[in-house]
Amino acid sequence: MLQLYSYFRSSAAYRVRIALALKGLDYQVVPVHLLRHGGEQFGEDYRRRNPEGLVPALAEGERVLTQSLAIMEYLDETHGPASLLPADAPGRARVRALALHVACDIHPLNNLRVLRWLAHQLKIEQSVRDDWYRHWVELGFRALEAQLQSPATGRCCHGDEPGLADCCLVPQVYNARRYDVDLSAFPTIARIAAHCESLPAFQAAHPDAQPDAE
Amino acid sequence: MLQLYSYFRSSAAYRVRIALALKGLDYQVVPVHLLRHGGEQFGEDYRRRNPEGLVPALAEGERVLTQSLAIMEYLDETHGPASLLPADAPGRARVRALALHVACDIHPLNNLRVLRWLAHQLKIEQSVRDDWYRHWVELGFRALEAQLQSPATGRCCHGDEPGLADCCLVPQVYNARRYDVDLSAFPTIARIAAHCESLPAFQAAHPDAQPDAE
Repeated sequence: MLQLYSYFRSSAAYRVRIALALKGLDYQVVPVHLLRHGGEQFGEDYRRRNPEGLVPALAEGERVLTQSLAIMEYLDETHGPASLLPADAPGRARVRALALHVACDIHPLNNLRVLRWLAHQLKIEQSVRDDWYRHWVELGFRALEAQLQSPATGRCCHGDEPGLADCCLVPQVYNARRYDVDLSAFPTIARIAAHCESLPAFQAAHPDAQPDAE
Repeated sequence: MLQLYSYFRSSAAYRVRIALALKGLDYQVVPVHLLRHGGEQFGEDYRRRNPEGLVPALAEGERVLTQSLAIMEYLDETHGPASLLPADAPGRARVRALALHVACDIHPLNNLRVLRWLAHQLKIEQSVRDDWYRHWVELGFRALEAQLQSPATGRCCHGDEPGLADCCLVPQVYNARRYDVDLSAFPTIARIAAHCESLPAFQAAHPDAQPDAE
């Protein structure tokens, strides 16, 4: 049985939960609470599995995989027919680029450890931290919205079936809403997110549907 | 002929230059100066190719690819025998995770646009910005060093031949040196970087060897 070390609100864990659900794979959630006990992700037990002290990690028997995008590619390569990436190389490059756009250029600037560093080390006040958050999301979403103005975009980021890019986009939209980012400036992103969120796999992966949800 | 929109010091462009050289592919460098003219990456001409306004982008005929990792995967899938990723799925997952560790968890916090935001919007002084830089590199390198303590590590990140992870690691080490990060705490990273830097492909891709080097 696959085991996913997850925190309900972690954007990266949310991505992998969507991928697991899209592929119809059973898995057990092992909650890693990012805020309790000084952060369970920093505990010795979890660090043995993932020295980075970040969620998610995926255990399959003795094997432990880290990095959400690497985990999703692995699942797609090894569990059932490939479905998260298109069959053609240019299509795969497009989908990976959209996914990486979120995973490299938006999310890393806004995750918990960075917001904490801004607060505690740099003494940046809450309202300015919120501006920081929105700035990187809006900058990234503007470019992403432009990249989605393509005949390759369908009901989802690439065609009509959800894939790797949608697994990254939907958690980022969820986070953007939490920070009151106005999505009306990004109609394609909003439309794709709304469609994906209507699908059972995305609903099963939603933070509120997790065993560790608060 | 492949065209790489590149800036000599861009870490992400450096990655792709290494991959192109490892695969023995000819390409033309189209310099995009990140500092001149208010940043040529923000010009209308470049933005048409990459709405993100980040380098690199790779043009192959009419096709323009963005995101360094997506570009490298595409090159490996379409140009000659695959050589940047191992043949086995667990190996691929490991190499991708190491590459993403650099590309998602270290580099995005330290690139030009973030350092500028810290300086101009948050009025963070130079010495504190340098601390920020070193903090994320050292945090990331500590975890990466731990992950490299594996029988799968050889002269390179995965075995003895350079691949996707090394394409990401070497530019990050180059950047770390520029910010006086003490690499003696990361002996495996330093050893792998030194080995890779002795190889012709890595030398050809080095910032100092670029037509736009200053």
